[in-house]
Amino acid sequence: MLDSNAEPVSLIVMGVTGTGKTTMAQELVNELGWPYAEADDFHPQANIDKMASGHPLTDEDRWPWLRSLRDWITEQAGKGANTIVTCSALKRAYRDILREANAQVVFVELDLDKTDIAERMTQREHFMPVELLQSQIDTLEPLEADEHGIRLISNLPPEVLCHEALSQLGLALSNIIHLNERQQQGDTIMTAQANIGVIGLAAMGSNLARNLAHHGNTVALFNRHYSRTEKLLAEHGTEGNFIPAKTMEEFAASLQRPRTAIIMVKAGAPTDAVIKQLEEAFEPGDIIVDGGNSYFKDTIKREKEVRAAGFHFVGCGVSGGEEGALNGPSLMPGGTAESWKTLGPILESIAAKVDGEPCVTHIGTDGAGHFVKMVHNGIEYADMQVIGEAYDILRRGLGLSPEAIGDVFADWNKGDLDSYLIEITADILHEKDERTGKPFVDVVVDRAGMKGTGTWTVQTALEFGSPVTGIGEAVFARALSSHPELRQAAQDSAPAGPNNAITVGDQATFIEDVRRALLASKIIAYSQGLNEIEDGAKQYGWNIDLGAVAKIWRGGCIIRAKFLNRITDAYTNGHPAALALDPYFAKFLADAQESWRRVIKAAIDAGIPTPVFSSSLAYYDGLRSKRLPTALTQAQRDFFGAHTYGRVDTPGVFHKLWAEQNRPEEQQA
Amino acid sequence: MLDSNAEPVSLIVMGVTGTGKTTMAQELVNELGWPYAEADDFHPQANIDKMASGHPLTDEDRWPWLRSLRDWITEQAGKGANTIVTCSALKRAYRDILREANAQVVFVELDLDKTDIAERMTQREHFMPVELLQSQIDTLEPLEADEHGIRLISNLPPEVLCHEALSQLGLALSNIIHLNERQQQGDTIMTAQANIGVIGLAAMGSNLARNLAHHGNTVALFNRHYSRTEKLLAEHGTEGNFIPAKTMEEFAASLQRPRTAIIMVKAGAPTDAVIKQLEEAFEPGDIIVDGGNSYFKDTIKREKEVRAAGFHFVGCGVSGGEEGALNGPSLMPGGTAESWKTLGPILESIAAKVDGEPCVTHIGTDGAGHFVKMVHNGIEYADMQVIGEAYDILRRGLGLSPEAIGDVFADWNKGDLDSYLIEITADILHEKDERTGKPFVDVVVDRAGMKGTGTWTVQTALEFGSPVTGIGEAVFARALSSHPELRQAAQDSAPAGPNNAITVGDQATFIEDVRRALLASKIIAYSQGLNEIEDGAKQYGWNIDLGAVAKIWRGGCIIRAKFLNRITDAYTNGHPAALALDPYFAKFLADAQESWRRVIKAAIDAGIPTPVFSSSLAYYDGLRSKRLPTALTQAQRDFFGAHTYGRVDTPGVFHKLWAEQNRPEEQQA
Repeated sequence: MLDSNAEPVSLIVMGVTGTGKTTMAQELVNELGWPYAEADDFHPQANIDKMASGHPLTDEDRWPWLRSLRDWITEQAGKGANTIVTCSALKRAYRDILREANAQVVFVELDLDKTDIAERMTQREHFMPVELLQSQIDTLEPLEADEHGIRLISNLPPEVLCHEALSQLGLALSNIIHLNERQQQGDTIMTAQANIGVIGLAAMGSNLARNLAHHGNTVALFNRHYSRTEKLLAEHGTEGNFIPAKTMEEFAASLQRPRTAIIMVKAGAPTDAVIKQLEEAFEPGDIIVDGGNSYFKDTIKREKEVRAAGFHFVGCGVSGGEEGALNGPSLMPGGTAESWKTLGPILESIAAKVDGEPCVTHIGTDGAGHFVKMVHNGIEYADMQVIGEAYDILRRGLGLSPEAIGDVFADWNKGDLDSYLIEITADILHEKDERTGKPFVDVVVDRAGMKGTGTWTVQTALEFGSPVTGIGEAVFARALSSHPELRQAAQDSAPAGPNNAITVGDQATFIEDVRRALLASKIIAYSQGLNEIEDGAKQYGWNIDLGAVAKIWRGGCIIRAKFLNRITDAYTNGHPAALALDPYFAKFLADAQESWRRVIKAAIDAGIPTPVFSSSLAYYDGLRSKRLPTALTQAQRDFFGAHTYGRVDTPGVFHKLWAEQNRPEEQQA
Repeated sequence: MLDSNAEPVSLIVMGVTGTGKTTMAQELVNELGWPYAEADDFHPQANIDKMASGHPLTDEDRWPWLRSLRDWITEQAGKGANTIVTCSALKRAYRDILREANAQVVFVELDLDKTDIAERMTQREHFMPVELLQSQIDTLEPLEADEHGIRLISNLPPEVLCHEALSQLGLALSNIIHLNERQQQGDTIMTAQANIGVIGLAAMGSNLARNLAHHGNTVALFNRHYSRTEKLLAEHGTEGNFIPAKTMEEFAASLQRPRTAIIMVKAGAPTDAVIKQLEEAFEPGDIIVDGGNSYFKDTIKREKEVRAAGFHFVGCGVSGGEEGALNGPSLMPGGTAESWKTLGPILESIAAKVDGEPCVTHIGTDGAGHFVKMVHNGIEYADMQVIGEAYDILRRGLGLSPEAIGDVFADWNKGDLDSYLIEITADILHEKDERTGKPFVDVVVDRAGMKGTGTWTVQTALEFGSPVTGIGEAVFARALSSHPELRQAAQDSAPAGPNNAITVGDQATFIEDVRRALLASKIIAYSQGLNEIEDGAKQYGWNIDLGAVAKIWRGGCIIRAKFLNRITDAYTNGHPAALALDPYFAKFLADAQESWRRVIKAAIDAGIPTPVFSSSLAYYDGLRSKRLPTALTQAQRDFFGAHTYGRVDTPGVFHKLWAEQNRPEEQQA
């Protein structure tokens, strides 16, 4: 579609508001590195004044604006530069002006159906009336057949759309390099000398490749755009043995058999695209590893498909972020036992080490690795929330400063709570904001984001019927924090309640109570999460060793903590029905429970929310209960819905004929 | 496949343990009404003794057993009866014996892949070692080409499998009627005189059809097997105007245009099958209503497809169970506004009436009706759980008898809590068990089941980021109750904690506290559920009137309650950001909160779990909080994952370079 030998290109991303033009342009800028302009920045002052006074622009107002944008494109092209532009360009007449630029002007029209747009609009901070959107849609003259460009129905992730646009425009790698006037490098003759390859060299992938090289592996490198490969080589090429590849074929040729490649691209469609390429370039028996944060059900599906094509497919959870990827992550690989023979020693070489033991184990077949990684993240949500609740009680309840609470956390980090999250909490609470001199935590907006794994953990638990109340409350606590309008409305109407102050006799004693409450709630969150893993293992036929899982979480990952040694012991010495029932942890909970109850009661009196503390204690007391009021619930279900019930004294399934006289009981077949 | 003119048929459902033979046979019995036998019941005493002593049977032991089963089939066939049999029949030699019967012996082999079987086994109460299953699989000789029968890979719902089997066996309706030697009825000439039709005449469908007829509608009737239609006519034919149809074509011919038909079959594949038939028999412009408990996302998908074929499709939530269907349900229809013109008056005629107003309103387009019905059920979960928690506190905490608590609930039912669920709770608590003379609730196993809508409500809320903590805890409370092994293990190790007794000064005052805690928690559950509906409306572009929704929940449905009038008022008088912030409810919560806090603290001291009470209060206090500790959470996320943060004093997105000296803050593009 593009002539890469002709004049420079200008890609103009167009469409009505809300179609994601800016996001798309950012992706294109990331991929291509071309200069970028947003049309709104080209309005003459007169237009700005007019809009500011609430008057809509006429087309007469628009002509000078569009011409100055056109001139910018021409100017850039004059310097040999390709450009990327975002502009609604709703009418053909507007586009005609832009096309006058001395460049190959190509439009990328983004189109969504109206419901999707309305949805996007309402998700934005800043609302735009949907009616206004409708007027834009009415104005829109879509690209016509004789206009140079493509049209994309955009309900895919931006990176996929970007890929799609580049592919439809014929902007394949070689073209882009040419368009960017990059020096083509001479071909080198390949021999298969790498024992591992990495595909996708963004932050995580680069760091993992370096980590591999640091540990004596020879690492084949491939990235969709070669510039990233070059960057890695330029900055870190001397750190070990790297073999860069410009094409997937070169990449395959540089790998010893069975070829083993770790994919480090975004989850979803980009991962699928790379797998497809690998299936073409690799041979049966080779090992394809997905090191991204894929949803475990996708991994199960992929593994089945890839295995059917003769390859091994390993979904591998990688925890520890960019820093872990470089210096030692915690790794949770699934896949076949056979793939583990080749992959195991490589992963062991780069994993974090605790007491000399690498933080990696073969979790189980197909999606087991990504499943365990998902629950790991769910537990992380609960772990962070219990820290937040403890902080809140000390802050709002006792009125301690962040610095003083930082000292408390630093102190806690020396005992049973010794862990990465407690350590960084102390660090964060000690941090000052450089701009204002205030405690850093006080200038941060109290809105916690999410990226999906916590949500998946709870949704999956609901599917299994695994009560992960701590993780559930932690996810919902973040959700509540991310409803600014609801929260503002609450502030405006000021619902009645206590003023948060907690009066204590001895402050040190109460702080120790809070520490125990935190640890008790954390133990329940682990207990629930580990039970979810067991339920998942049953559901999917995985043979997961919980002791080994706890062991590999001791280092490298975000929830790394000293007390994971105790969890390993619990599952090495026996097989408790729940971690909370293991003798060591049961004793801790028995000793801590009075503190736990005291702290929650104090928070209730003070009106400080402790959803995970409270929920975890309720779970503990539920577990302790010989009889639960769910007998009444089931009786109600039988009453209004004939859902039947069991009897405590006789096996069988029963239903009472509630509407009949004397309400006889029937035994069901 | 079957010769309906020849000798009687025997359908033998075979396969290894865990494939669902019994369930399948039950479906077949339901559909066909033939005599049924389970092979295990034919063992001679010698075999039973041998198995009881732990010795496996040999094939020599099996011959007499199989012969007596064969003889039963012959005997039944001699009387002209077709039969259904379940028998593992793993070996060809076993089947050869059964085939000696004087009947057309046909095998239906159920086959699952091993993982599925293992999954089913572990879900059963009564475990069978998976190894034993493996030995069965090893023994199995699948049906051979010359054996009369079919093989089904069974991972579908039983009713779909049954349908599939009947269809593969050529047991279409007409054949079955013939096989059953039913009298074929003479054709009647049809004129289009029905204004509404009902398809699927099980309990719910029959009752809905009768309700329609009671209100002056002329109701076309169709059921896959005509016997059910006949039964309805025989028992209730005089209650109104019914037009029975033997075929879908007759059914279509009997309906006035636009034809309007309510499907009352099971959700999922059976519903899809009926829709397909209707698309063939109906004409564009006709209205197809799904009155089942379909998942709203399925409804959205179906509506799109059915609308593309030119029909109106209405997913309609029907609440109130069998009794509601007959005497007045609460109805939540989605679909087009045009379909509502025809359907509205019909639904209004049969809906429950409160203050003369019918409990039905047009909820919104496509899946809106089923979505609102789903959240209704989610709220029902929370409502039932808060009743359970109040009961538990009075029972275990105060030591009151079920009868005495029944009196308390009867009393509560006279005030703000006046509602169906409180009323039946009082009734259930007053109920005595006829067998033992004990309070009925005490003989019921304390294990509450679930059918999916509660789970969906929470999973969907997680997708939206809507914090429905009360519903979430209620679903998890049922989940915990349904883990008997975990609970037994807890009983065995007896975790430490208080003995449940609550000492109070004035009992009546404390009971009033409990009442307020219940109502406050219930208000929060509604507040959260209604916010989920709003989030769903935004997500899917529905225009849902929450006041109208509350209004139609006042009667007919399980959560019907007097206080829904107040909710209607709240959304008629204004549009609160949350129900809990509406002046009336905010005042109630303000007045009730001290009681609420006292009750939860007493339960914590007593070790009685109150997950929904606690979670609802935590939500209330979270909503009240000007600053939440999620600022710390977000700072942690920025620390370990570069997830960025907002500043309270400046717009924009920021990231701190935590690993660099002085940790500079960067503003993100």
